[in-house]
Amino acid sequence: MDLNSDLGEGFGIWKLGDDDALLGIITSANVACGFHAGDPSTMRKVCEEAAKNGVKIGAQVSYRDLAGFGRRFVDADPVELADEVLYQIGALDACARAAGTEVVYVKPHGALYNATVHHEKQAEAVVNGAKAFKNLPILGLPGSQLLKKAVAAGLRPVQEAFADRGYTPQGTLVPRSEPNALLTNTAQIVERATRLRDGEIVAVDGTIIKTQAESLCVHGDTPGAVEHARAVRDALGAVRSFV
Amino acid sequence: MDLNSDLGEGFGIWKLGDDDALLGIITSANVACGFHAGDPSTMRKVCEEAAKNGVKIGAQVSYRDLAGFGRRFVDADPVELADEVLYQIGALDACARAAGTEVVYVKPHGALYNATVHHEKQAEAVVNGAKAFKNLPILGLPGSQLLKKAVAAGLRPVQEAFADRGYTPQGTLVPRSEPNALLTNTAQIVERATRLRDGEIVAVDGTIIKTQAESLCVHGDTPGAVEHARAVRDALGAVRSFV
Amino acid sequence: MDLNSDLGEGFGIWKLGDDDALLGIITSANVACGFHAGDPSTMRKVCEEAAKNGVKIGAQVSYRDLAGFGRRFVDADPVELADEVLYQIGALDACARAAGTEVVYVKPHGALYNATVHHEKQAEAVVNGAKAFKNLPILGLPGSQLLKKAVAAGLRPVQEAFADRGYTPQGTLVPRSEPNALLTNTAQIVERATRLRDGEIVAVDGTIIKTQAESLCVHGDTPGAVEHARAVRDALGAVRSFV
Amino acid sequence: MDLNSDLGEGFGIWKLGDDDALLGIITSANVACGFHAGDPSTMRKVCEEAAKNGVKIGAQVSYRDLAGFGRRFVDADPVELADEVLYQIGALDACARAAGTEVVYVKPHGALYNATVHHEKQAEAVVNGAKAFKNLPILGLPGSQLLKKAVAAGLRPVQEAFADRGYTPQGTLVPRSEPNALLTNTAQIVERATRLRDGEIVAVDGTIIKTQAESLCVHGDTPGAVEHARAVRDALGAVRSFV
Repeated sequence: MDLNSDLGEGFGIWKLGDDDALLGIITSANVACGFHAGDPSTMRKVCEEAAKNGVKIGAQVSYRDLAGFGRRFVDADPVELADEVLYQIGALDACARAAGTEVVYVKPHGALYNATVHHEKQAEAVVNGAKAFKNLPILGLPGSQLLKKAVAAGLRPVQEAFADRGYTPQGTLVPRSEPNALLTNTAQIVERATRLRDGEIVAVDGTIIKTQAESLCVHGDTPGAVEHARAVRDALGAVRSFV
Repeated sequence: MDLNSDLGEGFGIWKLGDDDALLGIITSANVACGFHAGDPSTMRKVCEEAAKNGVKIGAQVSYRDLAGFGRRFVDADPVELADEVLYQIGALDACARAAGTEVVYVKPHGALYNATVHHEKQAEAVVNGAKAFKNLPILGLPGSQLLKKAVAAGLRPVQEAFADRGYTPQGTLVPRSEPNALLTNTAQIVERATRLRDGEIVAVDGTIIKTQAESLCVHGDTPGAVEHARAVRDALGAVRSFV
Repeated sequence: MDLNSDLGEGFGIWKLGDDDALLGIITSANVACGFHAGDPSTMRKVCEEAAKNGVKIGAQVSYRDLAGFGRRFVDADPVELADEVLYQIGALDACARAAGTEVVYVKPHGALYNATVHHEKQAEAVVNGAKAFKNLPILGLPGSQLLKKAVAAGLRPVQEAFADRGYTPQGTLVPRSEPNALLTNTAQIVERATRLRDGEIVAVDGTIIKTQAESLCVHGDTPGAVEHARAVRDALGAVRSFV
Repeated sequence: MDLNSDLGEGFGIWKLGDDDALLGIITSANVACGFHAGDPSTMRKVCEEAAKNGVKIGAQVSYRDLAGFGRRFVDADPVELADEVLYQIGALDACARAAGTEVVYVKPHGALYNATVHHEKQAEAVVNGAKAFKNLPILGLPGSQLLKKAVAAGLRPVQEAFADRGYTPQGTLVPRSEPNALLTNTAQIVERATRLRDGEIVAVDGTIIKTQAESLCVHGDTPGAVEHARAVRDALGAVRSFV
């Protein structure tokens, strides 16, 4: 099982999340590329620390939206969006190579992640941008247009599950506006992780969902989140990047 | 002799210069990388057209200053500046590779070009950024700190001369505030180009200056400039990139 | 009848449209406020020229999207959008006051204009931003949510018609993807303007639509457009701002 | 005695400093205006809280430099800089007026503050921008070009002293690179504040400097800083804005 998390999400003087703590826990770092967060020096330093920790680097590509942290859908033209994705991957890869490593996968951030679950043209745009760079694996939601377009383009789709989100019996995420959307109990979160090794997710009603998720997303933007991530890591024992 | 020019200096809806005309004239395109100008789609398209025309691609790196078009000195921290240079080169190289070509040199833009003539730390920062990417040649002013730092870092320095600027007997450019700063006569500009093949520049007082310039910078942001560039190209006959 | 047009839509070194020509033709200038275009110096200068020409100034507010020229829908939070509108109006009003005039109305730009035809929350956000500044009139499409929310908030709604767009028999604009979306014939454009004085628009099938439009939008981003605007002005004779 | 501090220096998702704590301590808030920090919603909310606390609002104007937090000198053209200052003041004043208050002074931020101590043209530009808005008082360093240009332009100069900085016998600040640059001892900081009421500052060597400072700058970007600010406030007892 792979553990992925979002890193490098500060900008200039502003910091966000506990990158150092996470780099000792995760196996894959989704590094912000400057469009929703991430200045060049932060990007290079995160890549250096990731390399030291043996953590793989993915490009966490986003809409161009610093003010909204990439959390607002932007009705971007697919050709322009593909080029923006390409630009971001290239910029991060330069930072990664300067740190002796490289970008080995792509994961869209925030509103772009959510949009590409259903938005075919934007999903294709992200895939096109990634493919124009190199045949990089795409990390995303099982069943998403993003992963379908990745398959169609000959890119490796990597399904991810979430350590701290409730699942419906149908295997979709419980919306944040509903009860049980978030797992806050460490034991539950650890169980999610360990069951995932057996290809199973337990839904909020107890239904067992079969899954092929290769990567588990953990968060680090709160102190509690880091502790949960560490508990997941400890429970899983052996973790390794999907790449 | 190489002919270089600044390209891709629009941003989004805004256009600047006649890229298409220049791509039929020059051998090296200094392509804007998004910090003073240049959105990702413009960057990719310019790279595609350059590839079609056999024009080499250089990263025209800049301070982060869209509002000032990179023409304002910024007292940037050298480490951050080096990372910003690295970021820009990587972003452009991704666009270039998607177009079947690659970035093969670096030339700073505007205020960064001027600053690195004398500013040792910023000159070193640009060189460090370029070197962190790959051992790319650096295009710059003869005698500049930029080229000295390039040599010190083991990068190839490439000296450039200007087709349309007056030179003092000492070999420096006549300041724009003084008479004869600009050559506007086609015959003079063509003579500059042809004399340069013999390693000579004729100063404003007639003094002959010895030069090792390998590249001649031409402009394309006015209709007249394009015509001058074309006249230079026609007069030179054989031109080829310094790379 | 009022004639309005978009002005000040350059940014830094980049220019767009023929502001000087339009300022001799129109009565109301929708001045860009820095979010899709418009640097502070351009804003102040346009305000100065508008003041000299007796042209009224409106805030052409936009999503924060320089790269997309405000032409991409952004799913902005309504509270944040209202504050962004407020910010833009205030910034432009300072430039206007420095030029001896002031902002007297608001017109959303591009994708925000289109979104607020139907998007109730964003329409309300624009109105809230305008109202938080001062009880400014709102310029918009007849029947739009934008004008409905303006009325509900006690702001004066000002309906506009377009000089160079085809209308359906129902009074909506013919989509740009369909035939007859654009009027390109000067005589037709002039007829549109003169019929408008009588409260009528002739649809593409000849149907006569009753309208209460107080302002006619003309464009200036092409040489032909300026000529059309001038012809409209000449045909109308007396024009005056709706304020 | 007035107590001033920098507020609203987050941007979008990123936060900086403890605005709420400071608003219960200070009498004048230097509010970021969007160029080095400060999104419109943050600006409006800070203004609302300031109004509730009876804290006066100043425009903390800056170079356009989000990535560098306005801490890098930018060799901006004075006319453009004046317009950028005007733009920022107007934007903040709109937010302030929506909160039932208004901008009553101007204080440059970071590198612009430091530059305008000596840089005559930029000092004049800041003053021109402020004056173009309204005859606002200017807060700055005693003896600075900024305050001299304010006087020359008929604006009220307001001298400030620093609660936590060491002073040389000549009355200038001890550079941060030297010993005793910072006061970290609460008793010393409190003594600075109370002596200031008598028009005196005690230099690092014990020399007593006469001062006409009307405002004391306190910081809030560390927990310790807030405690120091509170101790200063408690020691001073009666504080009130200089306006």
